Amino acid sequence: MSQAVEQAVEQAVEKGTLYVISAPSGAGKTSLVAEMLRNDGQLGVSISHTTRAMRAGEQNGVNYHFVDRTEFEAMIARGDFLEHADVFGNYYGTSHIWVRETLARGQDVILEIDWQGAAQVRRLMPECVCIFIVPPSPEVLRERLVGRGTDAPDVVERRLAEAREECRHAVEFDFLVVNDDFATALADLLAIVRAQRLRMTVQQTRHRELLAGLSGPAL
Amino acid sequence: MSQAVEQAVEQAVEKGTLYVISAPSGAGKTSLVAEMLRNDGQLGVSISHTTRAMRAGEQNGVNYHFVDRTEFEAMIARGDFLEHADVFGNYYGTSHIWVRETLARGQDVILEIDWQGAAQVRRLMPECVCIFIVPPSPEVLRERLVGRGTDAPDVVERRLAEAREECRHAVEFDFLVVNDDFATALADLLAIVRAQRLRMTVQQTRHRELLAGLSGPAL
Repeated sequence: MSQAVEQAVEQAVEKGTLYVISAPSGAGKTSLVAEMLRNDGQLGVSISHTTRAMRAGEQNGVNYHFVDRTEFEAMIARGDFLEHADVFGNYYGTSHIWVRETLARGQDVILEIDWQGAAQVRRLMPECVCIFIVPPSPEVLRERLVGRGTDAPDVVERRLAEAREECRHAVEFDFLVVNDDFATALADLLAIVRAQRLRMTVQQTRHRELLAGLSGPAL
Repeated sequence: MSQAVEQAVEQAVEKGTLYVISAPSGAGKTSLVAEMLRNDGQLGVSISHTTRAMRAGEQNGVNYHFVDRTEFEAMIARGDFLEHADVFGNYYGTSHIWVRETLARGQDVILEIDWQGAAQVRRLMPECVCIFIVPPSPEVLRERLVGRGTDAPDVVERRLAEAREECRHAVEFDFLVVNDDFATALADLLAIVRAQRLRMTVQQTRHRELLAGLSGPAL
C-alpha cells in the first residue's frame, strides 16, 4: 500500500458505503445501476483506470482514466488499486485512494466488477456490501448470450462458460437480486441501499446528538 | 427449554425473519407497526401471554393469551418463553414455540418489546433483526410524554426516566429509524424488511434451483 493510500485509510472516518455489484453478462446489471444512479443522488460510480485504447466518443477521466501499461504496473506495484484485472491483455483497475476519499465525503460508491474483483475488494474493505444480480432463468440468460445466432460458436461458448463461472460465485455475495421485472429489481436494489443507511453503525454517527439528547438530562 | 421448544428449534429450517422493534413511549412505534402490517402480508405480530386481567373489548387469543400466575410461572420454569417481563406486578411473555413455528412457515414475525426483552431475544435467537425507533428530538418526546399536564408530576417523571433508559440502549440494535415524518419512517421500516428478504442467506434457499441452473449445464 502506498503512503498516499495509507493516509487516506487512516483519515477516512468513512461515512459512505461501498457497494460491489456483480452479475453474469445479460443480467441487466448496467441498466439497473444506471437507473439507481438516476434515482439516488448520494450514489456514485467509480471511474476505472485502464490501459485499453480510448474509443471514439470516450473522454479521459469521464469514461475511464486512460493510462499506459508502465504507469498501470507502477500503480499495481505501489498497491494503489483496490482491485484490478487483466482482461484479454488490457488492464482495468479501481483506485483505492479515490474510493476511500469519496466514501469519506459521505458519498456511496458503486463498483461494477466481476466476482474476482469482488473477492479482492472484500479482502481490503470487508465492510463493503456485495450484491449479485441474476436473470430469472437459465433459458433467459442463454437466449441473451446466444443473441441472434450471428456469433461464432466458440465466442458464444466462451460467453456461456464465463456466465456459469460468475454465477458459481453468487453465494459469496451479501444480497441476491433476481432481475425478472426491471422495476421490481430496481426497487429491490434501492431498498438495499436505503436499509444500509439505517444501520445503527451508520446512524449512530449521523444522529449522535439526537441519541445523546434523548437519553440525557435534555429530555 | 421444554421438550416441545427443543423439537420446534430442531425442526425449524427458519424461512421467516424475526424483527424486534423497540422505542421509547411516544416515538410512534405502535402506529408504525400497524401500518407495516397493513402494507406487508408476510408480516405478523406475536400475541403475548399475560397475567393481567382482561379488559372490556379484549378477547383471549386475539389481544393476548390470558393465563394465571401459576400457569405463567410454570411456563417460565419450562423455558417456554423467548422473553418475558414483570411489569408492575403483571407478567408478559412471548411464546418461543409459537415464534419458531411461525418463522418455519415462512412468515416474518414482529415483536414489539422493550430493550430488556430485546436483549433476552438476542441471546436465544441472535439472527433476529433489531430495530429502534426514535422521535426527531428530545423536545418532541418530552411534549408527548408530559401530555396535557394533567398527570401527577411523579407519573410524568417516571415516564421520562423510562424513556431515557430505553434510549440509552438504542445502540444495541441493528437499525435506527427516526420518526420525524410518518410516511418516511414507514418507508424506512418497509425497506429494512424488503432488504432482509434479499440477503443471500435467505435467497439461496428460495432460489436454490435457479442458482444451480445458472451455474450448471442447463445454461
